Amino acid sequence: MSLIVTKFGGTSVATPERILKAAQRLVDYQQQGNKVVAVVSAMGKSTDDLLALAHEVNPAPPARELDVLLTTGELVSMSILAMAVASLGKKAKSFTGHQAGIVTTTKHNKAQIAQIKAGRIEQALDDGNIVIVAGFQGSTKTGELTTLGRGGSDTSAVALAAALKADLCEIYSDVDGVYTADPRVVPRAKKLESISYEEMLELAAAGSGVLQMRAVEFARNYKVTLCCRSAFSSNPGTIVREEAVEQAIVSGIAYDNSEAKITIRGVPDTAGIAASVFSAIAKANINVDMIVQNISEHGYTDITFTAPAGDLDRLCPVLQKQVDTLGAREYLVDSSITKLSLVGAGLRTNPGIAAKMFKVLSESAINIEMISTSAIRISVVIDAKNSERAQQALHTAFDLDSDQVFKEETLSAEEQAAKANKGR
Amino acid sequence: MSLIVTKFGGTSVATPERILKAAQRLVDYQQQGNKVVAVVSAMGKSTDDLLALAHEVNPAPPARELDVLLTTGELVSMSILAMAVASLGKKAKSFTGHQAGIVTTTKHNKAQIAQIKAGRIEQALDDGNIVIVAGFQGSTKTGELTTLGRGGSDTSAVALAAALKADLCEIYSDVDGVYTADPRVVPRAKKLESISYEEMLELAAAGSGVLQMRAVEFARNYKVTLCCRSAFSSNPGTIVREEAVEQAIVSGIAYDNSEAKITIRGVPDTAGIAASVFSAIAKANINVDMIVQNISEHGYTDITFTAPAGDLDRLCPVLQKQVDTLGAREYLVDSSITKLSLVGAGLRTNPGIAAKMFKVLSESAINIEMISTSAIRISVVIDAKNSERAQQALHTAFDLDSDQVFKEETLSAEEQAAKANKGR
Repeated sequence: MSLIVTKFGGTSVATPERILKAAQRLVDYQQQGNKVVAVVSAMGKSTDDLLALAHEVNPAPPARELDVLLTTGELVSMSILAMAVASLGKKAKSFTGHQAGIVTTTKHNKAQIAQIKAGRIEQALDDGNIVIVAGFQGSTKTGELTTLGRGGSDTSAVALAAALKADLCEIYSDVDGVYTADPRVVPRAKKLESISYEEMLELAAAGSGVLQMRAVEFARNYKVTLCCRSAFSSNPGTIVREEAVEQAIVSGIAYDNSEAKITIRGVPDTAGIAASVFSAIAKANINVDMIVQNISEHGYTDITFTAPAGDLDRLCPVLQKQVDTLGAREYLVDSSITKLSLVGAGLRTNPGIAAKMFKVLSESAINIEMISTSAIRISVVIDAKNSERAQQALHTAFDLDSDQVFKEETLSAEEQAAKANKGR
Repeated sequence: MSLIVTKFGGTSVATPERILKAAQRLVDYQQQGNKVVAVVSAMGKSTDDLLALAHEVNPAPPARELDVLLTTGELVSMSILAMAVASLGKKAKSFTGHQAGIVTTTKHNKAQIAQIKAGRIEQALDDGNIVIVAGFQGSTKTGELTTLGRGGSDTSAVALAAALKADLCEIYSDVDGVYTADPRVVPRAKKLESISYEEMLELAAAGSGVLQMRAVEFARNYKVTLCCRSAFSSNPGTIVREEAVEQAIVSGIAYDNSEAKITIRGVPDTAGIAASVFSAIAKANINVDMIVQNISEHGYTDITFTAPAGDLDRLCPVLQKQVDTLGAREYLVDSSITKLSLVGAGLRTNPGIAAKMFKVLSESAINIEMISTSAIRISVVIDAKNSERAQQALHTAFDLDSDQVFKEETLSAEEQAAKANKGR
């Protein structure tokens, strides 16, 4: 008997019809002889509705109360899914994050899972129930309700799979697997049959939205086999595990349009300036990604880095203060950039890949503004207007092109609309 | 320093604007030097929306999951109210029923409060917070989520007031107090300044919707002073406590149109028939109110009783089975009845009241179908079509008429609409 943890994203449970479809999948799994745990996100765009309601009474709602509010979205979808399973004649029990024993840190809105006390879930499984757990939420040791931040439901699912020693953790969403590139940009993108944790991590960090980075990290640390697949088709999806079956040099191209490039110009080049700047930014709870410090000229230097464009309104006052404090000349912000990344386990043993990447871009007359590399990833920052052209050129140059041209599966108008609303 | 527990019904928190108004009331109470606890219902008709959603996936949703779903309504309103208090610059903390230590029995959908462990609320009050608690819900000893059934929020408030030894428990709703009769039926109805627990209990049992019976019972048992008042005006409301200030013989007239009259005809008059019938009905979890058994004729008798008309679809199969089992002739159902009650502490010492009531009805040519009395109440069942005429005649005959003619306060169209949606 296998134990399967199955996660349904917001679009997969957006309507009563879809919830009944998800329930049928769970019942099928159980009838095939598996123990079944489902982790659910809130229905469709209900989280956004709750946020809008909160902002009607308070433009800056307290984090603790926001967490109380947001947990309700998953409570609705999980109880409705349990009712749907019951309507198919099978036993189901839903559990809030707190009831499921998901203990988190105390950081409201961005809590991390510290521990899972899975006894109650195991008991319910032993009693023959299909178990349904609220994703995205947990509670602190003192019983305060917390949420894990965007994408937290994936993490809930993987953490539960680890705690329950599940044989497989399936992530259902509106994407049917991991592709060598975004098929909307590169129509000849190929779906990967399997990929390693490390590559998936680099892809996630580089902007591929298929899986949340924290979830993949968790899966790697606890050796949980993942499968990402579509709730709207029966396609097999992509398996994420320790070693990929097919070991291509480059497994995929990812891009991220959500970052901005910030340059602090004319900083007096003394010890401790980088520390000062990045401590101040960290204090404001803003994640910095790539950092480049140019060589010093006449005792002055420039510091360039990328950060989420969505955090600019909080970041700019911090930067202005740093400019004033450090006696720098000014800071510049460029929001129209793309971060483009090549990811592949083969990069480790093929030193020529970076050079080839730069050559392809140069031949396409695309200027590289920043570079950063890891053992299995090369990222460049380029002008956003060149993003699609660059991806297509690289995809072809690295022999990733498929024989088939991608087209979106035939979705109903309603499903298309739902796909537009990103779940958690 | 006083401690006030304030309950806001669904209409009082139906919109962000009203929630801000409620928040302002709480802040005012605190600034007047009080410790403040608010108990909230779900916003407007959100409970009905959740029920409709549940029925889309399952016509008979499991009670446990229904409770999980329904608890979310109060979680939304309480967190939004806490955010609203914060937006006014004051500290607030919201607590779910589970977090507030409201321990209930295990009967899902109709749980009863068994205990309140108020330590966490007391701590939050001592820390200077306005405390907001989800009404209508609690959790069992093993941490299962439960709801208290319709009107349960009133009970939550009174039980909390008792546990916290509050000085006053205010119930805000869309009604501004307890009247001698329904002012929509009897325009000369008077608002009572105060009323005793016992009279209030009888009025609630007799169909007056101002306060839930369980809540009044709780208040009586723990000597909690209640005040029911309107969220839409600054009128003083009605105080419910041990002894009313003004001791009228009859304090009010209540009516209930929600019951049906059922008669089982031609039952063989042997020992144990009543037990058989009413055990079967109790087993179906249907509350029976008035019961009359006619004298036996030729070894056969009729049993007549009233039960909620809303339960008829569940009741009828039970009755048919009883008719078959007992060898009775048939059962008859009459849904167009009204139960009309006179309530007053003075009934105890004024034996002529019942006779006067029957005389007034007879003079109005209104036929009495059933009679039932308690120490301070007389109830009759009459044809529903005579309900209003009977109330008006009795109100005048017992000198309850006010000098003023009632008119609804000036409400906005939106408020009128909200009033139509009954909260919990």
